Amino acid sequence: MTPGPFDSALLGPLLGDAQAAETLSEARFVAHMITVEAALARACGAVGLIPQDVAARLSDALAQTHVDPRDLGAGTAAAGVPVPALVKQLQAGLGPDGQFLHWGATSQDIVDCAHVLQWRDMLDMLAVRVGQLLDALQHASDTHSDTLMAGRTRSQVATPISFGLRIATWAQPLIALEAALPDMRARLLRVQFGGASGSASAVGVHGAALSAALAHELGLADAPCWHTDRMAIMALGGWLAGVSAALAKAARDLVTLGRSEIAEARAGTGGGSSTMPQKSNPVGAEAVITLADWTACLQPALTRAASPLEERDGAAWALEWLALPQMGVATAAALRHALDLTTSLTADPARMAAQLDAGHGAALAEAASFALAAHMPRPDAQNLVKDALARAKADDITLPQALDLIDGSRGLANWSVELSVQAQLAASETMRRRIFAQRGKI
Amino acid sequence: MTPGPFDSALLGPLLGDAQAAETLSEARFVAHMITVEAALARACGAVGLIPQDVAARLSDALAQTHVDPRDLGAGTAAAGVPVPALVKQLQAGLGPDGQFLHWGATSQDIVDCAHVLQWRDMLDMLAVRVGQLLDALQHASDTHSDTLMAGRTRSQVATPISFGLRIATWAQPLIALEAALPDMRARLLRVQFGGASGSASAVGVHGAALSAALAHELGLADAPCWHTDRMAIMALGGWLAGVSAALAKAARDLVTLGRSEIAEARAGTGGGSSTMPQKSNPVGAEAVITLADWTACLQPALTRAASPLEERDGAAWALEWLALPQMGVATAAALRHALDLTTSLTADPARMAAQLDAGHGAALAEAASFALAAHMPRPDAQNLVKDALARAKADDITLPQALDLIDGSRGLANWSVELSVQAQLAASETMRRRIFAQRGKI
Amino acid sequence: MTPGPFDSALLGPLLGDAQAAETLSEARFVAHMITVEAALARACGAVGLIPQDVAARLSDALAQTHVDPRDLGAGTAAAGVPVPALVKQLQAGLGPDGQFLHWGATSQDIVDCAHVLQWRDMLDMLAVRVGQLLDALQHASDTHSDTLMAGRTRSQVATPISFGLRIATWAQPLIALEAALPDMRARLLRVQFGGASGSASAVGVHGAALSAALAHELGLADAPCWHTDRMAIMALGGWLAGVSAALAKAARDLVTLGRSEIAEARAGTGGGSSTMPQKSNPVGAEAVITLADWTACLQPALTRAASPLEERDGAAWALEWLALPQMGVATAAALRHALDLTTSLTADPARMAAQLDAGHGAALAEAASFALAAHMPRPDAQNLVKDALARAKADDITLPQALDLIDGSRGLANWSVELSVQAQLAASETMRRRIFAQRGKI
Amino acid sequence: MTPGPFDSALLGPLLGDAQAAETLSEARFVAHMITVEAALARACGAVGLIPQDVAARLSDALAQTHVDPRDLGAGTAAAGVPVPALVKQLQAGLGPDGQFLHWGATSQDIVDCAHVLQWRDMLDMLAVRVGQLLDALQHASDTHSDTLMAGRTRSQVATPISFGLRIATWAQPLIALEAALPDMRARLLRVQFGGASGSASAVGVHGAALSAALAHELGLADAPCWHTDRMAIMALGGWLAGVSAALAKAARDLVTLGRSEIAEARAGTGGGSSTMPQKSNPVGAEAVITLADWTACLQPALTRAASPLEERDGAAWALEWLALPQMGVATAAALRHALDLTTSLTADPARMAAQLDAGHGAALAEAASFALAAHMPRPDAQNLVKDALARAKADDITLPQALDLIDGSRGLANWSVELSVQAQLAASETMRRRIFAQRGKI
Repeated sequence: MTPGPFDSALLGPLLGDAQAAETLSEARFVAHMITVEAALARACGAVGLIPQDVAARLSDALAQTHVDPRDLGAGTAAAGVPVPALVKQLQAGLGPDGQFLHWGATSQDIVDCAHVLQWRDMLDMLAVRVGQLLDALQHASDTHSDTLMAGRTRSQVATPISFGLRIATWAQPLIALEAALPDMRARLLRVQFGGASGSASAVGVHGAALSAALAHELGLADAPCWHTDRMAIMALGGWLAGVSAALAKAARDLVTLGRSEIAEARAGTGGGSSTMPQKSNPVGAEAVITLADWTACLQPALTRAASPLEERDGAAWALEWLALPQMGVATAAALRHALDLTTSLTADPARMAAQLDAGHGAALAEAASFALAAHMPRPDAQNLVKDALARAKADDITLPQALDLIDGSRGLANWSVELSVQAQLAASETMRRRIFAQRGKI
Repeated sequence: MTPGPFDSALLGPLLGDAQAAETLSEARFVAHMITVEAALARACGAVGLIPQDVAARLSDALAQTHVDPRDLGAGTAAAGVPVPALVKQLQAGLGPDGQFLHWGATSQDIVDCAHVLQWRDMLDMLAVRVGQLLDALQHASDTHSDTLMAGRTRSQVATPISFGLRIATWAQPLIALEAALPDMRARLLRVQFGGASGSASAVGVHGAALSAALAHELGLADAPCWHTDRMAIMALGGWLAGVSAALAKAARDLVTLGRSEIAEARAGTGGGSSTMPQKSNPVGAEAVITLADWTACLQPALTRAASPLEERDGAAWALEWLALPQMGVATAAALRHALDLTTSLTADPARMAAQLDAGHGAALAEAASFALAAHMPRPDAQNLVKDALARAKADDITLPQALDLIDGSRGLANWSVELSVQAQLAASETMRRRIFAQRGKI
Repeated sequence: MTPGPFDSALLGPLLGDAQAAETLSEARFVAHMITVEAALARACGAVGLIPQDVAARLSDALAQTHVDPRDLGAGTAAAGVPVPALVKQLQAGLGPDGQFLHWGATSQDIVDCAHVLQWRDMLDMLAVRVGQLLDALQHASDTHSDTLMAGRTRSQVATPISFGLRIATWAQPLIALEAALPDMRARLLRVQFGGASGSASAVGVHGAALSAALAHELGLADAPCWHTDRMAIMALGGWLAGVSAALAKAARDLVTLGRSEIAEARAGTGGGSSTMPQKSNPVGAEAVITLADWTACLQPALTRAASPLEERDGAAWALEWLALPQMGVATAAALRHALDLTTSLTADPARMAAQLDAGHGAALAEAASFALAAHMPRPDAQNLVKDALARAKADDITLPQALDLIDGSRGLANWSVELSVQAQLAASETMRRRIFAQRGKI
Repeated sequence: MTPGPFDSALLGPLLGDAQAAETLSEARFVAHMITVEAALARACGAVGLIPQDVAARLSDALAQTHVDPRDLGAGTAAAGVPVPALVKQLQAGLGPDGQFLHWGATSQDIVDCAHVLQWRDMLDMLAVRVGQLLDALQHASDTHSDTLMAGRTRSQVATPISFGLRIATWAQPLIALEAALPDMRARLLRVQFGGASGSASAVGVHGAALSAALAHELGLADAPCWHTDRMAIMALGGWLAGVSAALAKAARDLVTLGRSEIAEARAGTGGGSSTMPQKSNPVGAEAVITLADWTACLQPALTRAASPLEERDGAAWALEWLALPQMGVATAAALRHALDLTTSLTADPARMAAQLDAGHGAALAEAASFALAAHMPRPDAQNLVKDALARAKADDITLPQALDLIDGSRGLANWSVELSVQAQLAASETMRRRIFAQRGKI
């Protein structure tokens, strides 16, 4: 529809995210670059590379300076990066002090630092959303801890689980990702300062001190120049792709649970159709799937950008500029939809129960055979269950009722209790609790 | 930097393309959807599904109607597609006739048709650019038909070729793609009309006639409903990825030819560096590589969208909306840069010749051994060439001079003529002509 | 499990394909390379580059020669390509004639030609399988031309279609791909002869004649050297990815139709479970999805290989060796499974009908409203249908029965006839026939 | 060439890896599955689910049992997983005890545990190789700590760096990955036990205890069932893709440094050409690039596998079986080549120095302008450097010599000392040390 779907008037409200768009806007990016130049001036002053008073004046002046991205477009097209045009424009307003701006830095130092600042904000926001979503999922899971439904494996009804356990499995990968976030943040939020060829040669012996000072000014960790080491960017991409994959799993499950033939659960408001009054399209869950697939598609761009040639690689690096912001806004939007879906999630326990009863209780066959195996060899137990299932079908009764009737199993247990909902729920509840117990502990 | 890099004030002039952005704008997309609704009204009138006079009034009214995409955002978010909101807004201005709007259609019919119209314009534009680029490449190749340079294989100087042949190899894949375009266009530019479930059931027995009439109104080919058959979209994506790969090959060669150590050719204006006056960064060629890699990254999204579930799949389909416009604008921008690079291409024949002379003419070793093989067994010829190369190195003379000196080859030929530039150029010229002779013939 | 899943004893019977494995075996590949060297000798003889009698002896000797791939492993590791080791080994058995082997060729000429021969066989096989599958799909579609089922859009029951139409939509993309095959074959099945740097310089003025003669000997089309023009390989990859995407669509539909809760159709034998007797896992359809996803994952490797640097690029080229054979065997295996699934496909018309009746016939709402719109404004018609649906629900009757009862619609039509199965089938049948009518015509 | 390139007789020695192939062989995989079944028996005995003596006998018997993968092929094809066939075959040899085998487990429990065991071995091996490579890189970097070369940014000679720093940048991403390995291992090496639907329902209240006991037996961490949580697999894939991207960066640099026109460094033995004696193809570095690109291509398969539907998803899961082993062997082979390249790396300091002198020392321009800026405003300094460069060019002298001659700079410093090799090396040495100081500390 448009090359800018996330900012689009048409698609933005569906696929975009206002808060992420603001955080990732180019106006904010330019402001971050100015912040980095100001911090660099203070850092150069602190380590004695430029006069302290000049550093202070530069910092003060830049704090008041706003640059319109539109004024940098032509210069960016000419140089392939926005920094030369930015420096030139900033210097124009700084008088003789301007010569001390951008001291010893290369364009990539400024752009990478600005990106890191932008992603510090993004990760703060995403961490909040993941946390809120996990809280909501845990609440929904608790709510449905004793709602029995059919577990499905490979598209087939398998054995009973609680709906609470299913919801817990949606939370499970996000718990792992929440736990992995601090480490990924620490790898990412580092200063970038390498100068022309990554050796900070223009600042001579002051390289290490300047790097530390700049890191301090920006509230980032100090690090050697990482112009060509993009592992932290790949780790960020992997984390975003992980969140997306986790959300897509839940969304695919929701679409399936909400199918017309299943209709065991419902989430979101449902998109109507102009001609088919019965329809309730799973708009929110579909959007999560689309956004997650999109983020997954963009991840290889970061891998490709991670093998830059020589000291700096103009072609590979710019792929990050294309991929990362879209991965960020898509993940943010997917989380927003996922939170909406989770908080509006409702189950239909009657339909869930009916599905378990379909097939005369075949979903209980495994449980029955293990229960019988306490009394006889397992092969015998399995044969007995098969007989009981045939009897249940023939007489249109349930499997427990059949087991109470036929020779071999009759009297070995009170089968309606042994195979009761309550009995089935215990295992799910144990697993459900184990999953959520991991939160904050891994 | 921003989720909308192609529309961006900062990056747009570098990575975007004004003409493509206009063609792919959402305003144009909404206008195309209105065009489709108007054509559908006329088609319904023509086949008798709605009154002819109503059809005419609808068509006239819609021709005057403009809808702001911003007015459809909320409705798109609610329904997952923009069409219900559009139809509602259009009907509001049409009075009682409005009930006959969108007769028998589903949202996907309108959106897919509008996409096809948008891409008809895009393909017209891209065809022109590919044609212009091929003309420019052919001109540049002709210009350098007798400029000898070292062919390089697997990063090593191999045997001499003409620079004109190298340029022809840049054209070669584009010649194949230009030839493939009409067929791909024909597969893509088809009407979409399937109604709710792809059977056009709402229009009863009139389905085939309506489809034909709508196709006629839109200037598209008639076709059965292709809601779930996305092969034509995949073919479009493959064509765009092909163009991108072809351009990336040329751009990588240009970056390499323009390296400081090689400097045999130059293209584009060259981005300066604020602190390194000697630098001339290959901004245009880098942009082509980045854009081509981006298009390649997005192609798998179309493959994923090509396995939709059941009659229509909301999640898979929307991936096309995200991927195709960006692939379009990136390809258009890459072509624009490639044209700039080609028309500004200059060679440095002296440096090219010097490179061939480096190593005392080892690049001529293969030619020498085949020339000698006319007079002796090839193993003997190869040994003789090795001896001659050693002699050339020892005496700091060229390989032909050495062959004129040493026993075994002396007198068998006038080696300076036999291995002359002219002799080397003949094979390149033949191949170069064969390549361009394919244009318009495959 | 193993890096060679397709040859694997464990996974091969599931995911591999014996015929494709044979066609793509390295023994066959080595044999093809020898075939190419023999053809090159004859071609060199024909155009006078080497003595005719030598050419004949070489051709005869090579026809009797078998080389074990194991004897070429060390040489391939040393050179990065198998050809130098092959030539050396062949020459060892050819005596003095051996010097005339491989005349003027480069390794890539031999490998690319051998690949083309291998894929000529593969495409023959794949064409047969696609044809058989289309025949089977058409037969299955014909069989179910009057089996009514619920069309589903965006996971929701939409309007009735015939199961025959659904099956036709599985065939539809394959019809397009079958039609595209001859053109893709023609683009691919071309001779490769460029010599060291792509100009065929070693054979001097005989380049074009030799290329034509070699093409003739191999039964391929003549073409200029395409060392760096990989568009035909990309086209092949796109075709394989298209087949895969088409099969995955059908397989995903089959998995869904065979879900426990839906169970409207069944295909394949169904994998059992050791502990859950009720289960019938859709093993074949799952395998198709896995194989198709795998082929889709490998396609970008070909795009990456399509931007080689300079005259020949050792790193990019070898990606084709890794990707293409696996794409070939995966596609062949997916087609084999798809054929099994199609020929074993059975429907459960009763369950299909029951699903349509669920919700008191809401799936007929669209048809009803269009039928009523012949008698009243469409908004009135839609309101009347809503009333009728409410009445049907309240009285536990069907929608046609309700329409026969309530004011406004009563008497306007015989609603049980108007909305009958037969009436619903007509549109599907028209569309179904239009789809299959395309076969052999596009 | 063949669908099993890594096991191939032809390509295996180049692209495969014997140790990885052994670790990832299907024979070993089957052995791991038997190990898991034996451990499960002991664990069931320990928690009282099956008799202790039976558990002991099962464990002993299985320790002696070997199963040929070929015997499981047909069963795997029938069930889509190898476990039912394996269990059946094992039970055939276990007599009545056999009924207690595989107690409460599902196929995915066994396969996932076996995969984890296989990857425990692989990660041990890869960790050793990464460590050896880092040692070798550090040694090579130390060796070249005072070898000055031209840093290159965006394909252009930029400013001087030490070759030791360049080598350090190859190590830098690997240092980060070595540091990330323990955490990734810990996420991956966990027990899998969930039973039919992930709730371990068949073992009732013993689920948590059995999971812990099984983890203990296998030497893995305990964890809730992770049938549908594939974040650890994605993390493994991300780590492998990271290693690959890091190696590809180094390999691309090596290919570039070894180009005929540059020839500043050389690594590996170099592949010869049958007809071009001067050639030394960078076979090892090309193989690294190909293998790394391949690993990168396969990573999206794992992302796709990470959104499984419902409790278990047969189609998504099997993608891991296809992708992971190839990613493992490709990474192992790339590391092997990288180690060979590093230990055979030689530099040509004379050519490196000559390149820096080319352009009359323009690479020192930035250093000169910063040195001058200590004495005058930076714009004046930059203008002075431009004048000096023009003078150097005109008089065919070096930049320091020109600065010693012209007004403005003459006498401000001893320019040959100020801009000496030693002065240039200091900054590189600082950065180089900072990079290696991170090893073992991040």
